[in-house]
Amino acid sequence: MKNNKLTLLFAIFFTTLSMAQITKMEPPFWYEGMNKSEIQILFYGKDIAENSVIVSKPAIITNLTKTENPNYLFVTIDTKNITAQTLEFTFKKGKKTFSQPFEIKKRRPDSATRNSFDASDVIYLLMPDRFANGNEANDSSPNLTEKGNRNLPGGRHGGDIQGIIDHLDYIQELGATAIWSTPLCEDNDKGYSYHTYGQSDVYQIDARYGTNEDYKRLASEMHKRDLKLIKDYVTNHWGAEHWMFKDMPSYDWFHQFPGYAQSNYRMTTQYDTNGSKRDAKYCMDGWFVPSMPDLNQSNPLVLNYLIQNAIWWIEYADLDGYRVDTYSYNDKEGIAKWTKAITDEYPYFNIVGEVWMHDQAQISYWQKNSPIAKIQSYNSYLPSVMDFTLHDAFGSVFNENEANWSNGTIKFYENFVNDFLYDNPNNLLVFIENHDTGRFNEIYKNDFKKFQLGMTLLATTRGIPQIYYGSEIGMAGDKGKGDADIRQDFPGGWKSDTNNAFTNSGRTETQKQYFDFSKKLLNWRKNKEVIHSGKLTHYIPENNVYVYFRHNDTESIMVILNNSLNGQKLNLDRFEENIKGFTSGKDIISDTTLKLNNELSIEGKTALILELQ
Amino acid sequence: MKNNKLTLLFAIFFTTLSMAQITKMEPPFWYEGMNKSEIQILFYGKDIAENSVIVSKPAIITNLTKTENPNYLFVTIDTKNITAQTLEFTFKKGKKTFSQPFEIKKRRPDSATRNSFDASDVIYLLMPDRFANGNEANDSSPNLTEKGNRNLPGGRHGGDIQGIIDHLDYIQELGATAIWSTPLCEDNDKGYSYHTYGQSDVYQIDARYGTNEDYKRLASEMHKRDLKLIKDYVTNHWGAEHWMFKDMPSYDWFHQFPGYAQSNYRMTTQYDTNGSKRDAKYCMDGWFVPSMPDLNQSNPLVLNYLIQNAIWWIEYADLDGYRVDTYSYNDKEGIAKWTKAITDEYPYFNIVGEVWMHDQAQISYWQKNSPIAKIQSYNSYLPSVMDFTLHDAFGSVFNENEANWSNGTIKFYENFVNDFLYDNPNNLLVFIENHDTGRFNEIYKNDFKKFQLGMTLLATTRGIPQIYYGSEIGMAGDKGKGDADIRQDFPGGWKSDTNNAFTNSGRTETQKQYFDFSKKLLNWRKNKEVIHSGKLTHYIPENNVYVYFRHNDTESIMVILNNSLNGQKLNLDRFEENIKGFTSGKDIISDTTLKLNNELSIEGKTALILELQ
Repeated sequence: MKNNKLTLLFAIFFTTLSMAQITKMEPPFWYEGMNKSEIQILFYGKDIAENSVIVSKPAIITNLTKTENPNYLFVTIDTKNITAQTLEFTFKKGKKTFSQPFEIKKRRPDSATRNSFDASDVIYLLMPDRFANGNEANDSSPNLTEKGNRNLPGGRHGGDIQGIIDHLDYIQELGATAIWSTPLCEDNDKGYSYHTYGQSDVYQIDARYGTNEDYKRLASEMHKRDLKLIKDYVTNHWGAEHWMFKDMPSYDWFHQFPGYAQSNYRMTTQYDTNGSKRDAKYCMDGWFVPSMPDLNQSNPLVLNYLIQNAIWWIEYADLDGYRVDTYSYNDKEGIAKWTKAITDEYPYFNIVGEVWMHDQAQISYWQKNSPIAKIQSYNSYLPSVMDFTLHDAFGSVFNENEANWSNGTIKFYENFVNDFLYDNPNNLLVFIENHDTGRFNEIYKNDFKKFQLGMTLLATTRGIPQIYYGSEIGMAGDKGKGDADIRQDFPGGWKSDTNNAFTNSGRTETQKQYFDFSKKLLNWRKNKEVIHSGKLTHYIPENNVYVYFRHNDTESIMVILNNSLNGQKLNLDRFEENIKGFTSGKDIISDTTLKLNNELSIEGKTALILELQ
Repeated sequence: MKNNKLTLLFAIFFTTLSMAQITKMEPPFWYEGMNKSEIQILFYGKDIAENSVIVSKPAIITNLTKTENPNYLFVTIDTKNITAQTLEFTFKKGKKTFSQPFEIKKRRPDSATRNSFDASDVIYLLMPDRFANGNEANDSSPNLTEKGNRNLPGGRHGGDIQGIIDHLDYIQELGATAIWSTPLCEDNDKGYSYHTYGQSDVYQIDARYGTNEDYKRLASEMHKRDLKLIKDYVTNHWGAEHWMFKDMPSYDWFHQFPGYAQSNYRMTTQYDTNGSKRDAKYCMDGWFVPSMPDLNQSNPLVLNYLIQNAIWWIEYADLDGYRVDTYSYNDKEGIAKWTKAITDEYPYFNIVGEVWMHDQAQISYWQKNSPIAKIQSYNSYLPSVMDFTLHDAFGSVFNENEANWSNGTIKFYENFVNDFLYDNPNNLLVFIENHDTGRFNEIYKNDFKKFQLGMTLLATTRGIPQIYYGSEIGMAGDKGKGDADIRQDFPGGWKSDTNNAFTNSGRTETQKQYFDFSKKLLNWRKNKEVIHSGKLTHYIPENNVYVYFRHNDTESIMVILNNSLNGQKLNLDRFEENIKGFTSGKDIISDTTLKLNNELSIEGKTALILELQ
């Protein structure tokens, strides 16, 4: 009797424990009909690895992998020919068994062949915490450490997914066609978590931004407006609060020296034939900052986890593209496998990687089919890289009124001169600024003429333009004062804001000036195929005036950037190759038409975009 | 009788004229057994093209080309199987005939497989007019306009070939193994002719430097001392006083717009896929300066003339290499043919081209088998290019005592990081300065420690070091004051010089300090195979200290450049890949031996070259 009682007690105890054994299952579900039909499911729970496991028909387990941590079990099944249904995993340890359902869902039609962003788009980059607070109820979350506090420059300000949804019409009106939001997955860092690059759960939207369903709804609302959603993905590191860092599947899940060592940030070590192995290792495997454990993609479990997670989000949220953070800090072999796996699954899906380097050959190295990487038989498979050398030029050109051999608009010219080093220059992300750089309007002290020059180049050169939230209404911000200054709240995003720049009536006169110009320019660009895919032909700047053409068989656009303080007269003979057959040009901003006589006058610090006629 | 007299008179008159008809024959002779056996001989004389021409057996004429100018006749013969002998050309016009001998000479043994300069050499660049006046009798020449005048900074100072010959022992003692002299062919410009890049006769040594025979003697005297002679060749242009510019073979012998148009000097137009045709044309075909008519190498006669002239000098003077001026201003297709023709004839012959650009990918483009040029299916066939990006770094690094992300020795590091863009980085010419740049000792105010740092890097990195005459005794010169300042006379090269830096006893204490260090360093380098061909492995600079190794299977050299003002302690663990197995290092300058313990101390602004033991 006593024995029986004890047995019963133990039975209850063990059953309870067993039922609680699956704390996490990732991915939480999967999709039918994927090109790569094998899916490796991570089961996490106390001593889960001590169980045997079987799966219900028609599935079969093709691989079962344990790590040195018994709380992890990686179970692979092949979903080929398995239609949407709920499978059942049964775990058994001694006489104790329990089961866990796993759903295979239907995919949306044409999911694999989905389109993505390209040079026909204009990307609006925003930071969700700083854009608009659509739901004050989620400014803090009981389960997340950092609470909302708009008074802290580096704190959580309360912006969220609902705030973005509420202002999609604004973004659409502006003429942007895609949104890149900085990360939205959970970042449970104790402080300074608003940037959200130190994620603690990559299958979960941060509760202070909303829910997974909210994110899905954001995509859906965007698609109704012909807007594309680009998710910011971080393959290089997670946050130190990530649950898998706190209970590591294996020592080598992260790069350890042991523990923390700082990256040397010299990304060239990844291909320097003179480089030491040690420097390359510290670049790739060293941590970005102490709060961001560096993921070891050379561990196949890690790599596969990251691949599946990225694919899961595409399916779940119906994504239109990825932006990948710190792309070139990843081990180059590992990140290429990740990128190839995604683009193998979605052949038209665009991914733009952050490759923050200052030399075109070095940047080109990271683009798919790069002729530079080919020297070392490397292929990243990454379709798009960021044009950081153009960004560098944007940072100084408009203050260089006096041109010389290497100053002034020649810097733009010299950037495009090296396009032959890229496999696909039209798939470069072009940008004046982003969330990590000084704001253009700060650098140029809100000189509207310089803003016009910059935006004109951005909107008319080759590549995919990306603008940064708020600049279109003249927002400034000084990187020298810290990141918070370049990531200020968008005025009107909070109920208490007195200035609401989201609406015409709410804008100041200055904000109107910026917005109206941007809106006109970007909406004009929206349907200009010649800008999206036409050839670029440019001319050596003379007197700080840069002239280039975008042209195809049916149309020709002449862009003139006069960066000198003085008015200039252009002798048009020089451009005969491109203006032959045209007699006039209509400036798309002023709507005035200029005759293409021998000479064309342009005022100082002025841009013209002429549709040739 | 009267008739007869008149006939006789005419006969005498015409015979005299006929005899005088060949004013120039180029090349003046040729060589047997050349790989390309066809030789195109230019006959120049009044209305020469009105003659028929035959050649004595066993030669046969394979081509006869006339241009729009009747004073030129281009006659091609095939020399295959023709041994050394004198051929006879017979010209006939109506009943008048005259003949012209043309000699086929024997070649020196192994002429085709001659060796050339490479990374085992140190090249001493000098300007003959400014080095030493060995023959005062030729300071002026009755046939050449500009007369000797040492008082004019931009005048002819009287330096000559005899002056070079007189000081070969000095150059040899210093440890240089090759001489690149700026051009020695005739430049009959009215003034400012001492640089000699505007040549008026490319088959003739300028009489103010000596004779063709003197030049040949220079080579011979050099070879006795194991010194190599590198001729400075100009394919891009001639001087406006060139006899063929004054009586052009054809309008298209030179680039004409008509006449002069200035180059835009933007050499990137040669491969810019966004570039306009017009900009590319003005770069290549525009003239360097108004006094230098731009040669049209797309005219096959011009191209062939330049090829034959270059080959002729190799055979005639027994050259060891070419340096080609303004290489990348030439039309890239034409200059590739020129370069290929020479290296086809002499497979081991080295040619270094001046490609004055500031981007490694752009420079690499011009080197033979460049992976960059391959993108556009181009091959220049030019074995060696100049490392101008390294030169750029030399111009500022040693004043950057405080290092940051991009300042200080990181600039050297970053230069070598891009070596993977070159097909053959060890065949780059490395240099601190040349006859067109500011002098190192001027930039650094004769700071001897900085000189030591610079020379150490130059002598130990990959590539072919080139030094500039006079720097080895501390000569300075400010480019800002004009070219004359960086091209001052070498002290001791003129009889009246009170300071004779060619001899130990004649040197000042400061000159001794510079010379003795340079001599020790360069003579050490002379037999260091590991420096000539060993692998380079470098480390990311820390605290402005740049560490790299040259190593092969048998030897390892550790080079440490401490560019900070302060002494530094290096933790040697970092360099384990390269110092494993070695316990000490012998500094080749101080001859002291340092233990390779955990830590190594080095004083501020100091270089160490350690032979690891």
